[in-house]
Amino acid sequence: MGSKKYTLINLKLILAFFTKNFGGSMSIDIESFFNKDLPVSSAKYTGLPKYHFIGGNNSKDNIPINELIESANRSLRKNGKNLALYGHNSGPLGNLSLRSFICTYLKNYAGMELNTDNVLITSGSLQALDLVNSIFLKPGDTVLVEEATYGGALSRLKKQGVDYVGINLTDDGICPVHLEETLIDLNKKNIFPKFLYTIPTVQNPTGTIMSEKRRLEILRIAEKYNILIFEDDCYADLIWDRSRPRALYSLCDDSRVVYCGSFSKSIAPALRVGYVVASWEVISKIVSIKNDGGSGAIEQMILADFCSKKFDGHVNKLVKDLKAKCDIMVGSLEKEFGSTAEFSVPKGGIFIWITLPNSVDTKKLSIISAKKGITINPGSEWVSNPNNGTHKMRLCFANPEIDVITNGIKKLSTLCYAEFGVPEISGNVERNS
Amino acid sequence: MGSKKYTLINLKLILAFFTKNFGGSMSIDIESFFNKDLPVSSAKYTGLPKYHFIGGNNSKDNIPINELIESANRSLRKNGKNLALYGHNSGPLGNLSLRSFICTYLKNYAGMELNTDNVLITSGSLQALDLVNSIFLKPGDTVLVEEATYGGALSRLKKQGVDYVGINLTDDGICPVHLEETLIDLNKKNIFPKFLYTIPTVQNPTGTIMSEKRRLEILRIAEKYNILIFEDDCYADLIWDRSRPRALYSLCDDSRVVYCGSFSKSIAPALRVGYVVASWEVISKIVSIKNDGGSGAIEQMILADFCSKKFDGHVNKLVKDLKAKCDIMVGSLEKEFGSTAEFSVPKGGIFIWITLPNSVDTKKLSIISAKKGITINPGSEWVSNPNNGTHKMRLCFANPEIDVITNGIKKLSTLCYAEFGVPEISGNVERNS
Repeated sequence: MGSKKYTLINLKLILAFFTKNFGGSMSIDIESFFNKDLPVSSAKYTGLPKYHFIGGNNSKDNIPINELIESANRSLRKNGKNLALYGHNSGPLGNLSLRSFICTYLKNYAGMELNTDNVLITSGSLQALDLVNSIFLKPGDTVLVEEATYGGALSRLKKQGVDYVGINLTDDGICPVHLEETLIDLNKKNIFPKFLYTIPTVQNPTGTIMSEKRRLEILRIAEKYNILIFEDDCYADLIWDRSRPRALYSLCDDSRVVYCGSFSKSIAPALRVGYVVASWEVISKIVSIKNDGGSGAIEQMILADFCSKKFDGHVNKLVKDLKAKCDIMVGSLEKEFGSTAEFSVPKGGIFIWITLPNSVDTKKLSIISAKKGITINPGSEWVSNPNNGTHKMRLCFANPEIDVITNGIKKLSTLCYAEFGVPEISGNVERNS
Repeated sequence: MGSKKYTLINLKLILAFFTKNFGGSMSIDIESFFNKDLPVSSAKYTGLPKYHFIGGNNSKDNIPINELIESANRSLRKNGKNLALYGHNSGPLGNLSLRSFICTYLKNYAGMELNTDNVLITSGSLQALDLVNSIFLKPGDTVLVEEATYGGALSRLKKQGVDYVGINLTDDGICPVHLEETLIDLNKKNIFPKFLYTIPTVQNPTGTIMSEKRRLEILRIAEKYNILIFEDDCYADLIWDRSRPRALYSLCDDSRVVYCGSFSKSIAPALRVGYVVASWEVISKIVSIKNDGGSGAIEQMILADFCSKKFDGHVNKLVKDLKAKCDIMVGSLEKEFGSTAEFSVPKGGIFIWITLPNSVDTKKLSIISAKKGITINPGSEWVSNPNNGTHKMRLCFANPEIDVITNGIKKLSTLCYAEFGVPEISGNVERNS
C-alpha cells in the first residue's frame, strides 16, 4: 500500500478513535435501530449485594473442587480430542456417558425407565424450558401453571405471548379439584391448554413435595382432559432424607409427561448443564430445532466422570449443609419476625417462601432493602396472579454465609418495621414506636 | 401408605411400564400437540461418516489437551468456588479475565480499542448471531448478506421471517458498487435494511480476505445509507501468515459496527465459547434479553488461563497444520478433478469453495455421496440465491485425516463422474466411458 494511502488510513483511524471514545455514539442513533418493546438496557455489573437472598445460587463451600479437577484431568486425557467436533463425538443429544448416568440415577431415585435416547443434555434447565415451549407453544396458546411457580417460567411464557392460568396449591402440591374445575371452565370457552407446568418435588417457591397418591390424581385428570404435563424436577435431589417420590414421568401410563432436570442445584449453577427427558418422538422433534451447535462439552465430560463415582456422596453432604443453613434462616426468621412471618419449614431445596402481614408490600420492601444491600425475591414475581404474592417473599439460604443470613434477616426486619410497622417485636425485644 | 394403596400404585406402575415401552406412544397422539411448521424430526445419531467434509469441525491433533488440563487445574483451584454463583462472580458479561484477554488480543491483531464492558461472552458465535438478530430484527425486516455466506446465518434469518438480499462478492470481498446499487434500489421501494452481515476476514465459504481499502469503502457506503454492519470474524485467527487486516469495527468512525468472534476455530468447537463486541449501548441491550443464566463457566475459566499464556503459540502451530492439510486437499482436487474443479487456494481458514461444471448439481451429488459415506456441503445452502450455488460445494479440510482427504476426494470424483459424466480424467488417467 502506498505511503499516502497508509497515512490517510491512519488519519481516519485517529479520527475514529476520538469520535468513538469521546463522541462516537453521538454520530449514530443506535437506539433507532433497536426493536421496540425490548426490556430496559442493563446497568453495569457492580458485584453482588452484601445480603444476597435472591436467585438459585448455591453453597460455595460445597463445590467439590478437588473432585472436579480430578474429573477434568481424567476426562480431558481420555476424550479431549473429541473437542474438535461439534457434538464431541456423542452427537446432538449430548455426552453419552452423562446420559447413561442420568438414566441410571433417575431409575434408582425416581422410578423412571429410560434409555439414553430419551435424554437430551441442555445448557441448563432454562434451555430445556425454551426448547419444550418452542415445540408445543405459539402465541395465543394457554398453559396451566402452579399458582406460585418459578418466575423465569412465567416471564418466558409472557415473552412468547402465551397465556397462563394458575392452579391452587396445597401442602401436597397441586389441588386436583381446582385443576379439574379450571379445565372444565376453560374447555367451555373453547380453550384447550397444551400442558400443565409443574415443579412437584420441592416446589419452587413453596417447597412442597407432592405425594405419589396426588401425582396419580393429577395424571388421571391430565389424561381425562388430554393435556400434557411438563415436569420440572430441578430441586428433586435436594431433599434432606434423599428419598424422592417416583416422578410423574414414571407413574404415567403413557408418554404425555415431558421431564426436565438440572445439575445447577446438585452440583453448581455456573456449569449450565441440564436435561430434558421424554419419549423419542419428543426428543427427536426438539433436536430438530436445537441449532446451537451443542451445549458446552467440558462441563459434560467432567460431570460424566464425577457423577458416575461421586454424585451420591456429594449430594448427601450438600443436603446436610443446606439443612443446617435452612435451620439458621428459620431460626433467624422466628427470632426477628416472630409470628408475623408465616412459612412452612422446607423438607429440602434452597428457598423459604414466607407470608408477611397484609400491611407489607414485599415489592416495595424489595426496593427499599436493595438500597441497603439486601436483595429478596418479592412474591408478586413468583405467582401467576400478582395479587396473590403481594405480601409474600422468597429467600434463598443456600449461598449466603451463616452470619450473612442472621444479620441480613435482622436488618430486613428492621427495614420492614420502619416502612410497614411490622414486626413490632424483634429478637424478643419490643421495638420503640 | 396402606398396603392396599401401595399394591394399587405398583399395579399401575407395571401397567405403565408395559404401555409405555410396548405401546405407550400409541395411547397419546403426541404429534397433535406439536406446533405446525416445525422441521422434520431428527434421525437417531449413528456416528460420523467416513469421509466427513461438512461443518466447521477442527483438527483433532491440534487440541491442546495437556495445556487445557493445566489450565483446568489452575483455574478451578483458584476460582472453583465461584461456580456456586450464576455468572461465576464475573456478572452477566462473562468471565472477566477472558474478556480482558479478548480486549488485548483484538487490539494487537485487529486494531480494536476496547474495554471489558464492550465484550459479552456467548455460547458460541451462534448465540451471538441469535442475540444480535433479536435486538435489531423483526419479521418483515430486511438485511443484506454476502451473496455466498454462512448457511446457518441464512437459516436463522429465514426462521425469524427476515428477508435477505445478497451482495456480489469479488476477490476482495463485498463489491461496493453492487452494495450501493442495491441500497439505492431497496430504498426506492421503501425498504431500509437494518444491517449488512459480513464475514470479511477469511470469508465463509469463499475464503477471501477483504483489504483495508475495501473495508473503508464499505464503511463509507454504510454511513451514507445509514445501515449497521454485523462483522463476523470467526475465522480471522486462521490466516496462514497470522497477519489480519484491521477490523471494520476499528476502521469505523462511529459505533455502527457490531462484531462477533469465537474460540471454536482457534481452539475447539465443542467448547461453545464465542463473543459479541460492541458499544455499551448495544451490549447492555443484549444483556437485557440474554436470559440463559450465563454461558458455561468452566470453559471460560480454562480459556482465560490458557489464552493469556498460550494462545499465539497454539494458533501458530495450528495454522501450520491447517495449511498442510489444505495443500493436501488442493493437491487431491487438482489430481482427481483436474480443470473441472475451479477454486481459489485459501490463504487461511478451514474450507475450500469449489465450482464444478454446469452439468453438476451439487445438491444431488451431496445426496448420492452421503449414501457412500462422503458428506459435502452443497453450494445452494451457502448462497443467498440458491441458483447461484447449484454447481458449487464447500469442503472442510481441517478435521479429516490426510488419507481420508485423499481417498475421499478420489471417491467423490468417481461418484461425480458416474452421475454427471465429469471429471473425465482422474489421477491423470482417463476414465472408461
